[in-house]
Amino acid sequence: MDSLDPSWFREASKRKRYLLGVSGGLDSMALLYLMHEHGFREVVVCHLDHGLRGEASIGDARLVGKEAERLGFTIESEKLDLRVEMLKSGESLETAGRLARHDFFAKCARKWRCKRVLLAHHMDDQAETILWNLMRGSHGCRGMSDLSELKVKGLTLEISRPLLGIRKADLQAWMESNHHPWREDESNRVNDVVRNRIRNEALPLLNAIAKRDVGKNLVRAARNDQETRAVFEWALEKAQPIDPQGRLHLGVMRSLPPALQAHALLSFLKSQHIAAIDHALLESCLAMLSPHVAASVNLPGNLRLRRRAGRFFIE
Amino acid sequence: MDSLDPSWFREASKRKRYLLGVSGGLDSMALLYLMHEHGFREVVVCHLDHGLRGEASIGDARLVGKEAERLGFTIESEKLDLRVEMLKSGESLETAGRLARHDFFAKCARKWRCKRVLLAHHMDDQAETILWNLMRGSHGCRGMSDLSELKVKGLTLEISRPLLGIRKADLQAWMESNHHPWREDESNRVNDVVRNRIRNEALPLLNAIAKRDVGKNLVRAARNDQETRAVFEWALEKAQPIDPQGRLHLGVMRSLPPALQAHALLSFLKSQHIAAIDHALLESCLAMLSPHVAASVNLPGNLRLRRRAGRFFIE
Repeated sequence: MDSLDPSWFREASKRKRYLLGVSGGLDSMALLYLMHEHGFREVVVCHLDHGLRGEASIGDARLVGKEAERLGFTIESEKLDLRVEMLKSGESLETAGRLARHDFFAKCARKWRCKRVLLAHHMDDQAETILWNLMRGSHGCRGMSDLSELKVKGLTLEISRPLLGIRKADLQAWMESNHHPWREDESNRVNDVVRNRIRNEALPLLNAIAKRDVGKNLVRAARNDQETRAVFEWALEKAQPIDPQGRLHLGVMRSLPPALQAHALLSFLKSQHIAAIDHALLESCLAMLSPHVAASVNLPGNLRLRRRAGRFFIE
Repeated sequence: MDSLDPSWFREASKRKRYLLGVSGGLDSMALLYLMHEHGFREVVVCHLDHGLRGEASIGDARLVGKEAERLGFTIESEKLDLRVEMLKSGESLETAGRLARHDFFAKCARKWRCKRVLLAHHMDDQAETILWNLMRGSHGCRGMSDLSELKVKGLTLEISRPLLGIRKADLQAWMESNHHPWREDESNRVNDVVRNRIRNEALPLLNAIAKRDVGKNLVRAARNDQETRAVFEWALEKAQPIDPQGRLHLGVMRSLPPALQAHALLSFLKSQHIAAIDHALLESCLAMLSPHVAASVNLPGNLRLRRRAGRFFIE
């Protein structure tokens, strides 16, 4: 493959500045070269050394620094000892790594007055994420977003993933045909047993059983799921369940299909800054649609959802 | 487990007649006894011998006949040679088996003037179906319906699956604690390599990786997906994209989110008795929403979808 041309690179403004997370591995190095090839010049390459790979870390940092400089990009790098961070925070190595990267991006974002962060997740990462979400049952058939927001230390970063539509094999072929170097860097994966097993055992087995590319099908299913969420937003707009006083109108709510009731209630609670609504709590709140159920449910933060005069409101 | 009490058995009318597909295996024998335990009396037990298991087939038929009689149910049984059917029809053994069962149910339905057919698929079957649909990418995250319609030989059968919410292990525990007999009958599965591998390899591996019951999570995700379809129906009702002349109004269509556009168009084509719309054809039709695209697309059955005066219509 001689050229990779996902729409993001065509459509994004070349005059804006971007922060790039670059580890030195195949995926993020491909992102680095693609940015240059497509004419982006205001690029800040952000390299965080997790301090987990000893000598190899030095090689990673050196390659990233050298190539960033050669391409005329700015380099921001930092070194930490993730094992120490992990012990300090009590988090798993994976979570501690993610939090450290977020902090690092926030720091770079402040310094360079730039909230646009690009990450190098590709379609194979996406398929793994979707399968894992299905397996653990937390988000249905859902993957990473092309574009999402990340709140960290009072900043809201805009996370874009321009490679999400590209297979890893295509990235590698492109890198090879262009003689671009990268480092075999699996440091951020080594400790992620679940991810590794999904990639190395589960997806290959599913491909073999189905005799087709299951990852691609998962990605398509998740894309449909994403488009479905736009229909929910549209339907909520049509339904208008919020009355002029900002309360939830039960007559309207009762006329909606159950899944839309749930979505309307979640949106209402979110608009009232009530987060952390789990499945059981949502069910309790929805049960209050029946006049035969007690007219009040406790919410996080010492609040209550109350039913009175045909309305739900927060107290 | 001493009692199994899915809502279907409580809610279904005891005065109506039901056709039961009973092979003699655990699942369908459990269905048989559950019908009796819950007070259903107008039950026609339909047993089709596929002629694949030799001596064992005779034992299956004998057990089903004996137990049906003991419970006071009617028995309908038929024997065929599925291998011959397969060669005649050119279908796979699995497909030929399914078609033969459909024909047999249609015959029983006519004889007993009863369109209600009960099948014994349980939650483990459902999880396998959902995973397989995800793997082959044909239906997103979707399983079998609790209630569906099946058109066969001019009849419309109502297929219900009352056990879809019950784990196979719970069925087995219930059968054992009640000392109900069944036959180890995997004849309808032996030749289904994909199903077997999903059940015996894929799901156990996913469970082991996730350290949780992945099947249950898949079933929940599919249930959410099913509820989502009700939201699409509701939204379509609100959108009213059909004009008084029964044509599709493009102004309305263009105001809808893409997934709802697709749903509206599919519903429109279906209402015009145009079936067999594949993904590519749907995309071509949707592309016609743009005034810059040619105003006509060929449809199956020598028909066309045309765009004129702000409307889509069939010609």
